[in-house]
Amino acid sequence: MIVMDVAALQAFLARDFAQVAADFVVERAEADGLTLRLRVQERHLRPGGTVSGPAMFALADVAMYLAILSRIGPVALAVTTNCSMDFMRKPQARVDMRAEARLLKLGRSLAVGDVMLFSDGMAEPVARASLTYAIPPAR
Amino acid sequence: MIVMDVAALQAFLARDFAQVAADFVVERAEADGLTLRLRVQERHLRPGGTVSGPAMFALADVAMYLAILSRIGPVALAVTTNCSMDFMRKPQARVDMRAEARLLKLGRSLAVGDVMLFSDGMAEPVARASLTYAIPPAR
Amino acid sequence: MIVMDVAALQAFLARDFAQVAADFVVERAEADGLTLRLRVQERHLRPGGTVSGPAMFALADVAMYLAILSRIGPVALAVTTNCSMDFMRKPQARVDMRAEARLLKLGRSLAVGDVMLFSDGMAEPVARASLTYAIPPAR
Amino acid sequence: MIVMDVAALQAFLARDFAQVAADFVVERAEADGLTLRLRVQERHLRPGGTVSGPAMFALADVAMYLAILSRIGPVALAVTTNCSMDFMRKPQARVDMRAEARLLKLGRSLAVGDVMLFSDGMAEPVARASLTYAIPPAR
Repeated sequence: MIVMDVAALQAFLARDFAQVAADFVVERAEADGLTLRLRVQERHLRPGGTVSGPAMFALADVAMYLAILSRIGPVALAVTTNCSMDFMRKPQARVDMRAEARLLKLGRSLAVGDVMLFSDGMAEPVARASLTYAIPPAR
Repeated sequence: MIVMDVAALQAFLARDFAQVAADFVVERAEADGLTLRLRVQERHLRPGGTVSGPAMFALADVAMYLAILSRIGPVALAVTTNCSMDFMRKPQARVDMRAEARLLKLGRSLAVGDVMLFSDGMAEPVARASLTYAIPPAR
Repeated sequence: MIVMDVAALQAFLARDFAQVAADFVVERAEADGLTLRLRVQERHLRPGGTVSGPAMFALADVAMYLAILSRIGPVALAVTTNCSMDFMRKPQARVDMRAEARLLKLGRSLAVGDVMLFSDGMAEPVARASLTYAIPPAR
Repeated sequence: MIVMDVAALQAFLARDFAQVAADFVVERAEADGLTLRLRVQERHLRPGGTVSGPAMFALADVAMYLAILSRIGPVALAVTTNCSMDFMRKPQARVDMRAEARLLKLGRSLAVGDVMLFSDGMAEPVARASLTYAIPPAR
């Protein structure tokens, strides 16, 4: 069951993360996972035109954050406590990237999930990430 | 394409890892992944009867190792260089565990994959792992 | 400030982890870190005589667990939630290993630390690990 | 032994990473480690004024990259293959951050190290990271 859909998540981003909201498009938000697109801009690129590591980290992190919020609503102040990423292939130059996030555990105080990152036009994943979020107790 | 099937992998374990071969049963070996069962014994348990962290680490590590060998054959001396695990739920007491491993990258010198660990009778994963193996250059 | 010293930690191991207590010797427990020795036995070895990955995982995990208990006492039922390990060098054959653990954060609900693993007679580390433990709320 | 000192590394950044070079100041480059400062700008901040996760990832990644180059020179095209980070404390608002990187292994094809991240004015680390870089064979 999700409590925030694509439109609600996109509106949340625009309101609370105005600085980066324009970079991200929520494409899918369902009980089994969330798809987030990074609209690649010049500032996301490394020399050579490939997407930088920090931009991929941001994509994975935001995707998991929204996957959690889609299930528990916009109230929670969840924070990333751990992120482990494997960078496996060079992304395509100057094309968008897509994150496929899924929650593996949504506990009272910790949420764990993994994210696969794809470059438009490549079948095989560019990177994978696993993330843990701490969820503060409800007040 | 796999070059070692279930029988070949099980025979490899018996020959090269005699100490632990009896603990593991290769249940499936296909291009898209491998399933390995840990036949839980007393020595795998923590007080309380749940499977220990090191036993789960071993299960994930052997599953990924066999997934690599199923694709490149028994020659290679692949070694684990990184393993990141999230322990999400307490396994069931005194029941077998199952690893579902998939290769995400099989490069010339590095292989990367992830593994989901399940306790018999539980639908949700007990743990997840991502592993990197270094593959030595062919001689 | 530590609340359990070397003798108290060793006694705790003997009482609560009787199965593995004989493998481990607490050599140092101070506010800034803990040293734990693995008395390498036949069952810790891989073919070729080097210490296995699961045995190194166990060494790192127990070292961090004891480092936490040295600070908060034997009551807590702390559980590992994440472990990320890098295996960097082949350990020496048939010699003991030593873990140097340090706590980087001891919060109310999460503890984070890192561990360096050494093989007797080698100056450079064999492996490193970072671990997170969840600490259940006091009752 | 280092083959690139502070001035050489800073010049390398300015030439090859012009986009981000102004963000980073190499403060120390020695055989046992490297110190890199992130000159925190508005674009590195999250709502509330704290440094964002991607900015901390970038700081850790660049620090390890420069630590490797300080030892092998500017030729190599090293790429990050794994990064595991623990975020432990909220950084101070609107102050610089500092990375302390050390190489734990510098092999022919893989380099491994860890990085501790500090916020100016805080004694305890904000985050820690371990990173693996693949070093391409010399041509």
